[in-house]
Amino acid sequence: MSVHDGNDEAQGSPDFDDDFQGKLDDLFIWRRDVRHFRNDPVTDELIDELLDAASLAPSVGNSQPWRFVSVEEEVRREKIRGIFSACNRAALEDYRGEKAKLYASLKLEGLKQAPVHLAVFVDTSTQTGSGLGRKTMPETLQYSTVLAVHTLWLAARARGIGVGWVSIIDPEEVHAALDVPELWELVGYLCVGYPIEEHAVPELVRQGWQDRDSDARILHKR
Amino acid sequence: MSVHDGNDEAQGSPDFDDDFQGKLDDLFIWRRDVRHFRNDPVTDELIDELLDAASLAPSVGNSQPWRFVSVEEEVRREKIRGIFSACNRAALEDYRGEKAKLYASLKLEGLKQAPVHLAVFVDTSTQTGSGLGRKTMPETLQYSTVLAVHTLWLAARARGIGVGWVSIIDPEEVHAALDVPELWELVGYLCVGYPIEEHAVPELVRQGWQDRDSDARILHKR
Repeated sequence: MSVHDGNDEAQGSPDFDDDFQGKLDDLFIWRRDVRHFRNDPVTDELIDELLDAASLAPSVGNSQPWRFVSVEEEVRREKIRGIFSACNRAALEDYRGEKAKLYASLKLEGLKQAPVHLAVFVDTSTQTGSGLGRKTMPETLQYSTVLAVHTLWLAARARGIGVGWVSIIDPEEVHAALDVPELWELVGYLCVGYPIEEHAVPELVRQGWQDRDSDARILHKR
Repeated sequence: MSVHDGNDEAQGSPDFDDDFQGKLDDLFIWRRDVRHFRNDPVTDELIDELLDAASLAPSVGNSQPWRFVSVEEEVRREKIRGIFSACNRAALEDYRGEKAKLYASLKLEGLKQAPVHLAVFVDTSTQTGSGLGRKTMPETLQYSTVLAVHTLWLAARARGIGVGWVSIIDPEEVHAALDVPELWELVGYLCVGYPIEEHAVPELVRQGWQDRDSDARILHKR
């Protein structure tokens, strides 16, 4: 990487070489949505490292609207599992026959095994960033929070820690169960822990639910 | 990383060592929202590599709903710049005094300099993934597309390429200007190219708009 004039900071700009680029691609391949966790604890120090990474995520107007909640009380976790189970039953009704059975067997939860539960909210009331950049696309506040989740996810996988994103869940019920400020809105509920298995292929591909879609890879031109 | 029984794939599981973890943190730090681009072209091969990476992003039910559109015709780029300018003027009306002047000077665009424009849409009509996981939180389809954008962004930065996300834009007008299928919805408009400068500190921090927010870094407990 060349250093450009008039930019002192660039002196310290790291060189991301071919070796790093290859390993980064490996990280994208081996990051997976993990649903089967070992019950080994994840240390507070590691969780801190993950939050440090997440805090570096891009955000609209530098609004940093993400709010991380560690769900630790067993009574609250039990409530979350109840919400998941009800939503999962309702979702199953949409599928018939073999596919439904397959769906039921996918064990999307991880909610029973994961030692760490992180509920990630967006603070829709935040004044940070003074609203910059989100007048025409206010959803960029939610999107910023998604970027923080993904940053945390990659940082976790690089440390051998798996993340599973639970979306079969009623966001308003989760909000109530966790007693958070009114204008926080759930973006994702994450199960975090050491995975039982490592995979390069998504579980939904391995289980025959949904393969890679070559149409999604097309670069359309206008 | 230990290899677990009953998991052949794990044999090939890469070892993300301390060196990689440190460089990954550097990538998070040096990824930036770039607004000032050199006009050197980015090769089709590099764009292909970025799309390959983006295609590895997590998606709800493996729905892979992202659709990438390379905006190449000058008349369309001019339309996009017009949409941006109108939205930017309207946004400026929300700010008074020094902050408004600062805002105007931030040059959020990059739209004039960047050699590559990528409009990223979510295909809200996709049947891929059979709707799995998005009944209670349908917005996870949009979120999946955000994850693909972020994956592309990191892969780009690792290759010395900068990305700037333009959100001061009317998504429906962009949709019309690019003549894409009706049920595609704009998630982000990306300027892509080699940056004029490299920075570890966000432009909005350097320009005094918005500093890091320590409140966002707190781990709340429940």
